[in-house]
Amino acid sequence: MKMVDLVIVGSVAIDSIETPFGKADNVLGGAATYSSIAASFFCKPGIVAVVGNDFPKEHLDLLKSRGIDIEGIEKKGASFRWKGYYEYDMNEAKTINTELGSFADFKPQLPEEYTNARYVFLANIDPELQLNVLGQIKKPKLVVMDTMNYWINTKREKLLEVMKKVDVLLLNDSEARQLFQTPNLVKAAGNALELGPKYAIIKKGEHGALMFTKNSHFSAPSYPLENIKDPTGCGDSFAGAFIGYLAKTGDESEQHIRKAIIYGSTIASFNAEDFSLNRLKRLTKQEIELRYREFVDIRNF
Amino acid sequence: MKMVDLVIVGSVAIDSIETPFGKADNVLGGAATYSSIAASFFCKPGIVAVVGNDFPKEHLDLLKSRGIDIEGIEKKGASFRWKGYYEYDMNEAKTINTELGSFADFKPQLPEEYTNARYVFLANIDPELQLNVLGQIKKPKLVVMDTMNYWINTKREKLLEVMKKVDVLLLNDSEARQLFQTPNLVKAAGNALELGPKYAIIKKGEHGALMFTKNSHFSAPSYPLENIKDPTGCGDSFAGAFIGYLAKTGDESEQHIRKAIIYGSTIASFNAEDFSLNRLKRLTKQEIELRYREFVDIRNF
Repeated sequence: MKMVDLVIVGSVAIDSIETPFGKADNVLGGAATYSSIAASFFCKPGIVAVVGNDFPKEHLDLLKSRGIDIEGIEKKGASFRWKGYYEYDMNEAKTINTELGSFADFKPQLPEEYTNARYVFLANIDPELQLNVLGQIKKPKLVVMDTMNYWINTKREKLLEVMKKVDVLLLNDSEARQLFQTPNLVKAAGNALELGPKYAIIKKGEHGALMFTKNSHFSAPSYPLENIKDPTGCGDSFAGAFIGYLAKTGDESEQHIRKAIIYGSTIASFNAEDFSLNRLKRLTKQEIELRYREFVDIRNF
Repeated sequence: MKMVDLVIVGSVAIDSIETPFGKADNVLGGAATYSSIAASFFCKPGIVAVVGNDFPKEHLDLLKSRGIDIEGIEKKGASFRWKGYYEYDMNEAKTINTELGSFADFKPQLPEEYTNARYVFLANIDPELQLNVLGQIKKPKLVVMDTMNYWINTKREKLLEVMKKVDVLLLNDSEARQLFQTPNLVKAAGNALELGPKYAIIKKGEHGALMFTKNSHFSAPSYPLENIKDPTGCGDSFAGAFIGYLAKTGDESEQHIRKAIIYGSTIASFNAEDFSLNRLKRLTKQEIELRYREFVDIRNF
């Protein structure tokens, strides 16, 4: 059996979503779900999460069918549930309701195999849980983290503590502006890098993504989608494909970081084409490579 | 004496501007001013405009010193004056007051030499004036136009008439969404191309620029500026450098259109570094080439 290359901690959840182009009730969602399925095109992820006794078996079967290790998923109590909607411009998810369920007091004990993983993705979840999981990994080679405004508002200090321990920090643009209290993303990225990460990546949705190091800058285009059905999970898909590609290559040079950002943008662009995991479920490696090549052309001059 | 390569019609104006980083009262401004000075790094523009008897001679001397032909600038009545401000995010100019002055009933008679120009930039101004000037050019090779929300609101039909006659349409993102009543820029660009232009370019300020043809797409990054003083004239500078570069090369293949967009982005990024024309006045060709090369690196993966 193949070893787990990448450990992902984050929510495995049940979502109810409405966008101007449709709705989906009680469907598979969660940051660890989107990111692990995106990563599974490149490497073998293992998930650290907790699902409720109400969580449908078919969702766990889907993860397994993608080669994702689910030994780190506990089962108890109630599932994490998120209900939200998007307005016409689709730039930002509006939360109607979040039920943490069993995640509220989740204290994971990682499977022994996971503690040897070289790649770690701390997906959007309570920063205390992120620290807990990271502390159990013996010798991580590359740690990537994501977060959201909820944790910036409620656990800012803990969040900054996590940021000091990671190699790559992912934020979306509004979170970066909020966290560092500046409208200027270049300044926000500079502040982020001062905390310790070598790379700060700012996701801008339909405007692509920016990557900053202390002395270089990369701007990734977005893919020109005419029909976006549901942007839920795009940031998570981006992150999963990003670190999955790096785990596959075993090379974290800036050149590969840049390519990984384009793979992240590629998978995220597919994800927006349908609700829940519907598009990623039927996505093929050939489609990924074709769209990656389109990205090459989009930025060529 | 060198022939005029490019005719630009638009305002030559006096601006009063306040941004979170300073203010400037009664300084040189106007779409034709910014675009002609930006174009002057690449070719010889001639301006069609009217200034008031109150217009300072030093401003006209500046244009002449840049090799810009001002035979097409009439002098009568009162100058075009614009007063505006920017809020903290600097994304959009808020207009306090616009006085059209002599532009209100300006009916230009183009100098004979101008009517032979091959390159025409219809900068942001009344679409009836844009049509008037374009009608006097005998055999234009490339016509580029810009506009703003004011004309979309007040003269939509005339504006669409101009759009049908141009090769390249420039819009900023909010104007594109407004004009074609969709939040999706890919759809807006598709609608724009249906009117006739071969290229639709959507300027997105700090998020760069997008170019669409019927079967291709280009995404230009923005330059990561940490200190923006005043974004006034950035769109005009972009446009002037864009068409100026094309006039210099005499080649409007898509490859050159893409390079021209990067030159436009380059000059616009410098323009934001200071108020009025202050940064462009002291800009050198060497600085332009260095920053162009930075753009190459910013998008490289």
